[in-house]
Amino acid sequence: MNHTNLKEQNQEIVLAMYPLGVPTADTFQINNIDMPELIEGNVLLKSLYVSVDPGMRGFMAKGDDDAAGNKFKLNEPITSRTVAQIIDSKNDDFKKGDIVHGRFAWQKYQSASVDNIEKVNPELAPISTAVSMLGVPGLAAYFGMLKIGQPKEGDTVVVSGAAGSVGSIASQIARIKGCRVIGIAGSPKKIDYLENDLGLDKGIDYKQTDNMVAAIKAACPDGVDVFFDNVGGELFDAVFANINEHARIAICGQIDDYNKENPPKGPRPMNTLVKKSARMEGFVVYDFKDQFDEAKNQLSDWYNDGKIKYRENLIEGFDNIPSAFISLFSGENIGKQMIKVGDVEDSEK
Amino acid sequence: MNHTNLKEQNQEIVLAMYPLGVPTADTFQINNIDMPELIEGNVLLKSLYVSVDPGMRGFMAKGDDDAAGNKFKLNEPITSRTVAQIIDSKNDDFKKGDIVHGRFAWQKYQSASVDNIEKVNPELAPISTAVSMLGVPGLAAYFGMLKIGQPKEGDTVVVSGAAGSVGSIASQIARIKGCRVIGIAGSPKKIDYLENDLGLDKGIDYKQTDNMVAAIKAACPDGVDVFFDNVGGELFDAVFANINEHARIAICGQIDDYNKENPPKGPRPMNTLVKKSARMEGFVVYDFKDQFDEAKNQLSDWYNDGKIKYRENLIEGFDNIPSAFISLFSGENIGKQMIKVGDVEDSEK
Repeated sequence: MNHTNLKEQNQEIVLAMYPLGVPTADTFQINNIDMPELIEGNVLLKSLYVSVDPGMRGFMAKGDDDAAGNKFKLNEPITSRTVAQIIDSKNDDFKKGDIVHGRFAWQKYQSASVDNIEKVNPELAPISTAVSMLGVPGLAAYFGMLKIGQPKEGDTVVVSGAAGSVGSIASQIARIKGCRVIGIAGSPKKIDYLENDLGLDKGIDYKQTDNMVAAIKAACPDGVDVFFDNVGGELFDAVFANINEHARIAICGQIDDYNKENPPKGPRPMNTLVKKSARMEGFVVYDFKDQFDEAKNQLSDWYNDGKIKYRENLIEGFDNIPSAFISLFSGENIGKQMIKVGDVEDSEK
Repeated sequence: MNHTNLKEQNQEIVLAMYPLGVPTADTFQINNIDMPELIEGNVLLKSLYVSVDPGMRGFMAKGDDDAAGNKFKLNEPITSRTVAQIIDSKNDDFKKGDIVHGRFAWQKYQSASVDNIEKVNPELAPISTAVSMLGVPGLAAYFGMLKIGQPKEGDTVVVSGAAGSVGSIASQIARIKGCRVIGIAGSPKKIDYLENDLGLDKGIDYKQTDNMVAAIKAACPDGVDVFFDNVGGELFDAVFANINEHARIAICGQIDDYNKENPPKGPRPMNTLVKKSARMEGFVVYDFKDQFDEAKNQLSDWYNDGKIKYRENLIEGFDNIPSAFISLFSGENIGKQMIKVGDVEDSEK
């Protein structure tokens, strides 16, 4: 029965053309491909949950200025963080049935080297969270808020993109640390989620607000001590206009910029940084690689204690990966955008 | 003989109008005024060395958005860091003859409360350095480079405004810490000063350079680890385009911006901060007030050991304070701009 799956048709999704602006259906192409051959030392993966994130847009640009070598190539499969099951193994460290995660190709089945594969511990939380709450988004929230934002009890903390996968966790971590937390998001449904589900002190719907500088000022009468920014652009400027002395600004993402060809222009922030003795810092989770285990354990404790709520926006079907990715830029989703592309198989079968 | 000086005519320089753009002679007005009356608890000061700094331009703008309350008011004397001598005292902690420094009015003589007066230790270095190398400029270089830039041996460090009062010290501190140091300045004379007097690894004359991005790249083949910025604007952008992962950018001043009415626009730096996990931080020396003594002792040791060279551009005469200030924005001075307005009096006379 080992090879039930191998009779199924395999598929992949490749980058068909470099997007200009927001990616469209034409950016991607689905191909039928052969089932992979499992070579010595590798494992055969069946994709279960595929994660899509706005930051991936940065890897779809032409050119090779990305030092990390993450750029997608034309006619090659897109890769993203994925939870998969090992359905066959020629490696002694991984056995059939194991649930793992890693940055895998958008392929239903693939043979993969085990170099960058990590096992998922199903005891911590539902396995899909390995690439969401306990994956890059959760870790970004954890390290960005705690190590860069450094919130102190009583601080006022503003989070943009607060209903998203990173922002929702970052906001709740600041609440756990005793801060007053204001979340910015873009729909009444999201504001309801922030205020009533996550328990933030206030949500601001930027799409319903003419003067964001004044709205932030009204919501933060004592000024802003920590700003966790997922958005950038004019939303950044509005929060930045309200920062306190010694404010810490964690730059996590800049979704407002990702679809623009050149770095957009905006008011230079340097003078204000000097006047306020403020700090602005970018980061990626891998800066904190040696603290991943500590962070995952803490996040899973908070989750299991009910201190962190987590929502996934789960879409079904391999074919729907591109549209699930594209919809990230419409600002409509609440929670982590995930695509379920396969079911866990009982390894005893 | 106590009152020799009191027979001299007193003078002051006031803000005559708010400057638009670069200040001009009309920005200021010199008035003849009465000699001050010395009230109980105060000291009578004779100004000796007046310091002028580009950052003062920020206090000449209309409005009250300066939280520190430093704004100059129309028809009131300008204030700046000044070395003075106490020529009469009604305060037990300060005696006639003492050399002190503080932020004093542009007046030849003034009665001052002792709240913000500090004694100068003439053993450390020449007394004028109390408002230059051992004053705000030296402290800005010290804390900005060491606490924010955090240079490590072998790092590549770029300093803009490197021939100025802050930049020249910041550059030399980075050299002391074993870094490769590139200084940016705006004349062949300054480049000669940086390379041959201060011993920097390379000076770049931005006025003679068409493509600053390429020039920085050529001078910093391993990229830029620390950027100490006194200038801002397009010079900032050129250095910023060459930063390494985990770069530290100390924003000390932004002379390019001071004479502009609104925050000028430029490419938003946030995306690069994320890609490079880089940090950008503004500061003022008072953030480190509790470490002033340590810093002054270290700077004076380096100075006396010949590890830090220091140059003052000394101009003579009270009347010349305004022109000495205005000339800061022409970018022609090497070293700290100082005006000598009086001689030390022998207190035994």
